[in-house]
Amino acid sequence: MTGVWEQWDHVKKIDPAKTLHNRDSYAGIASTGTDAIILGGTTNVTESSVRSILDALVSVEIPVFVEPTYHPTKFHHDTLTGYLIPIVLNAGDRTWVTGAHHEWVRSTETIDWELTHTVAYIVLNSESSVATYTQAGCDLDVDDVVAYAELAEQILGQQIVYLEYSGTLGNSAIVAAARDALSSAQLFYGGGIHDYESACEMASVADTIVVDNVLHEAGIEAVEATVRGATDAHHES
Amino acid sequence: MTGVWEQWDHVKKIDPAKTLHNRDSYAGIASTGTDAIILGGTTNVTESSVRSILDALVSVEIPVFVEPTYHPTKFHHDTLTGYLIPIVLNAGDRTWVTGAHHEWVRSTETIDWELTHTVAYIVLNSESSVATYTQAGCDLDVDDVVAYAELAEQILGQQIVYLEYSGTLGNSAIVAAARDALSSAQLFYGGGIHDYESACEMASVADTIVVDNVLHEAGIEAVEATVRGATDAHHES
Repeated sequence: MTGVWEQWDHVKKIDPAKTLHNRDSYAGIASTGTDAIILGGTTNVTESSVRSILDALVSVEIPVFVEPTYHPTKFHHDTLTGYLIPIVLNAGDRTWVTGAHHEWVRSTETIDWELTHTVAYIVLNSESSVATYTQAGCDLDVDDVVAYAELAEQILGQQIVYLEYSGTLGNSAIVAAARDALSSAQLFYGGGIHDYESACEMASVADTIVVDNVLHEAGIEAVEATVRGATDAHHES
Repeated sequence: MTGVWEQWDHVKKIDPAKTLHNRDSYAGIASTGTDAIILGGTTNVTESSVRSILDALVSVEIPVFVEPTYHPTKFHHDTLTGYLIPIVLNAGDRTWVTGAHHEWVRSTETIDWELTHTVAYIVLNSESSVATYTQAGCDLDVDDVVAYAELAEQILGQQIVYLEYSGTLGNSAIVAAARDALSSAQLFYGGGIHDYESACEMASVADTIVVDNVLHEAGIEAVEATVRGATDAHHES
């Protein structure tokens, strides 16, 4: 299976629970040059917190995905391209791999699987809320991360592997090794990208960089700098 | 991805830790009409226990797979078609989904993924050794099983879903519902098939039936009866 994400250099993740910076608008985010928008956060990604942002994004032409937390709401909205369902490979228990997902599938009448894709996370910052929330074992060396990436693609059929350094800039050697271990899956990188240089560094080793907090903290101009960093890194390579 | 298993109505599983019945030979098993042989058991599927059986199967023309236990040995043998790596969807912890597999991938220099496929088990007999071994939660109703099957294919990219009633004949309504929930994945059924009728019953609701203990307990003629049952069930449908 191939996905629209194969064309993504840069993705803007918006946390519906956080406010925008100054006078920024949600629609303005699409003008940064980012390739896609993901509405997602560790918790509280609920229908009510997402629907008003989708309304504000209605004229946007890039894909808009929702990454729901573990009881995904399912609703129709013209702006919505699809769902990205997270699994956490190095979580402390199987809740984050098969447990919550089983409950969700069981309790949902009809799931449109054409619109529903999976993202396989490897959580790497033990201080982050996602690490605490999923009790992730983050003490991983490069061989551990490479093995998780390979396992994700080859055993669990994942097409998106996401190295989540949440809040801190990652180790680019580990990111590069993980990407090299993948055959056709896309390597997403997230965490700590806040300016041109950090975007350029991580975009040079990942297939897709995900930019999150800088929007809420520094605004759309800072996001634009990260788009330029991603673009330049991919043009050079 | 498609696999050779799409053509399988009947598979003979051989436990390398058990002896054959009377004067049966391993090579004779291929003459039963079974579509493939899997060498596998809950424990002790090691290189030493497998290699001599592969030697005995050297002239066999049907596919021969090894289903290794959790530290899979990797070796070359002319008779070997490939590996089937089990994951257990309803295991008690993540060892049987990502844990042991991560250790295995990490500690193996080079894995030939072209030869390595995954089988997603749903373990349904709480009295079985596989249930004990994996601490599987077997108290599942039809909706639970259907949700696991759907999750396996759609979220975890599995192409083989295996309902394992190990040692007891399963509920054919549950098996049928699980198969109906799959889009292109193959539904394997295993457990309690010992004669023409039981083979016919389960082959009418599963894509592939797996016959195990009857070989060790009753011999090749009993296996032949189960092949006839599978063939007749699939010709009728």
